[in-house]
Amino acid sequence: MQLALQEACKGRHQTWKNPLVGAVIVKDNHVLATGYHHHFGERHAERDAISKLTPEQLFNSTLYVTLEPCNHFGKQPPCSQLIVNKHIKRVVIAQIDPHKLVTGKGIAALKENGIQVATGILANEARKLNEHYTYFYETNQPWITVKQAISLDHKVAVRTNQRTKITNDLVYQKVHSERADYQAIVIGSSTAIIDNPSLLTNVHTDYSPIRIVLDRRGRLLKHLDLKLFTDQKAQTWIFTENKSLSSHPFNNKFVHCFFSKNDSIGAMINELKNQELQSIYVEGGPTLEKSFLDNYLVNELITYIAPDLLGANGVSAVSPSSFHHFSDVKIDKLNNNVRIDERKQNV
Amino acid sequence: MQLALQEACKGRHQTWKNPLVGAVIVKDNHVLATGYHHHFGERHAERDAISKLTPEQLFNSTLYVTLEPCNHFGKQPPCSQLIVNKHIKRVVIAQIDPHKLVTGKGIAALKENGIQVATGILANEARKLNEHYTYFYETNQPWITVKQAISLDHKVAVRTNQRTKITNDLVYQKVHSERADYQAIVIGSSTAIIDNPSLLTNVHTDYSPIRIVLDRRGRLLKHLDLKLFTDQKAQTWIFTENKSLSSHPFNNKFVHCFFSKNDSIGAMINELKNQELQSIYVEGGPTLEKSFLDNYLVNELITYIAPDLLGANGVSAVSPSSFHHFSDVKIDKLNNNVRIDERKQNV
Repeated sequence: MQLALQEACKGRHQTWKNPLVGAVIVKDNHVLATGYHHHFGERHAERDAISKLTPEQLFNSTLYVTLEPCNHFGKQPPCSQLIVNKHIKRVVIAQIDPHKLVTGKGIAALKENGIQVATGILANEARKLNEHYTYFYETNQPWITVKQAISLDHKVAVRTNQRTKITNDLVYQKVHSERADYQAIVIGSSTAIIDNPSLLTNVHTDYSPIRIVLDRRGRLLKHLDLKLFTDQKAQTWIFTENKSLSSHPFNNKFVHCFFSKNDSIGAMINELKNQELQSIYVEGGPTLEKSFLDNYLVNELITYIAPDLLGANGVSAVSPSSFHHFSDVKIDKLNNNVRIDERKQNV
Repeated sequence: MQLALQEACKGRHQTWKNPLVGAVIVKDNHVLATGYHHHFGERHAERDAISKLTPEQLFNSTLYVTLEPCNHFGKQPPCSQLIVNKHIKRVVIAQIDPHKLVTGKGIAALKENGIQVATGILANEARKLNEHYTYFYETNQPWITVKQAISLDHKVAVRTNQRTKITNDLVYQKVHSERADYQAIVIGSSTAIIDNPSLLTNVHTDYSPIRIVLDRRGRLLKHLDLKLFTDQKAQTWIFTENKSLSSHPFNNKFVHCFFSKNDSIGAMINELKNQELQSIYVEGGPTLEKSFLDNYLVNELITYIAPDLLGANGVSAVSPSSFHHFSDVKIDKLNNNVRIDERKQNV
């Protein structure tokens, strides 16, 4: 199963809304083939491994797979049927698929056809592999990570309306790669206007995270030259309570505007749920991050800290209205900067 | 010389105002004896090593010593004379003593008596061994370290006038041992009153750091039951601009009050200089630490960070009036807390 987990990782950043899955076929204590889910919409891990072997090899073999095989027609035919057809004798599964279309059904189909099934082997490791996917299908909520980059005295800029590079180059690289672990990146309108960011990732992926701006008042109407509107390098979604902005005709297919009457964050989360987008990375600024914290929407907080003191004129980073305890704290050094990655205990 | 540096460390926390010094005597490529300065007021490292050998052994030997031998009568007779008397042939010195009574004079005395002298071997390591001592005698200023313990959102307490344990037990232990590296601990009157701290160290030492409270207005007059006044476990010094406090008759020999007309910090630093106390550890609160930062008095900043957010009602930690850059940043994990130790570049 460890090998199957390793295989699964090979699909990283290319399976998009699909989970990472790995499979290994064993017979007479020999590994005959490995496989993984390579790319969103393409064949599943089980099919990938099975395709490498002859019917004779597959007969009476054991399949190790990190996630319960599917039993429905999606973009691919059901894997359970293939396993049955190939006369595989035994299937060992790490994690039961939390996706309602699959949960338990894949296992039931296998058992009905006389295949031995074992589950739960390295289940925690498998859950961790697809943490956002698992959380989304278990709770029907996207996983929300807030990221902040602050000075040692908790400032995000030396003064108002001035973009300030606080953290070092290693942090810059890390943030750019970390973005690829999420399906959407969210910022507020101030950050969009002051920083004019691209919000792209430096990781090779066919599924760049969607760039979302929450612009309640519609301030972006006066800033239609921002990179997010013009670079056509990834989708840009705007959530606004301003009708002029939401009805503005954007002339490129990368930009979409969503109107909500009085709750941009709620509207955004609903839209993500509708589209089965499972994870978001909130990059600021402090006002937006405070909304997420105050509404207890945050699953994970990632803080990058630089060692300087910006001083009393600096713009303060987020301090929520009430106390927030975090657990599962991971601390990493990035040269002279620190990365603190932690989770809310109640999620 | 590496061995001599190791020897020097054995005196840690017991040499008080004196530097740590180690010595090794070598002849015919064999180490004959080692020695170190054990305790303030007792014999120096050279004498310690020499005392272990016979005149025959010492004749024509080489002495490695981490600090230039003294040439004056202090609490001990001059080591240079002893070296000459014992017919040691060669002396290898790591660091030239920055103490004006010694600098160069020890070396000169040895050379005048025909002894070969080499200097500068592992000099940086030797300077580091006695960083505060070296800084004090080179600049005539005590080394000032500011220590703070903060939440991830830069708070020192959940609300005003409430002592809050923010950091974890490992930090508590570390701070208590770290105090022993300094000759005085400084706090403001608010911290004294709210926290009622003992400011003791858990390290065995005959020289507990002096506990200093800066109490400009004399608020402590109404708090004479604080541990600092009553526990008689270490010296307590008060610096005040309030005559009632400074003339108050304290009935125990551990408490001393110093009056200054308008600059408690300046008066404190002068008194430390007069008494050749070379290092102070400023433990808060934020207002006092801001004074030290704004007056560019800080050599080193040690920040302990806990991973929780205390929220907007919390008491903010120090943010100085202007930008402060730090270098030489050392980051350590203490379980789920972080320790950041850094220095001002201009010192």
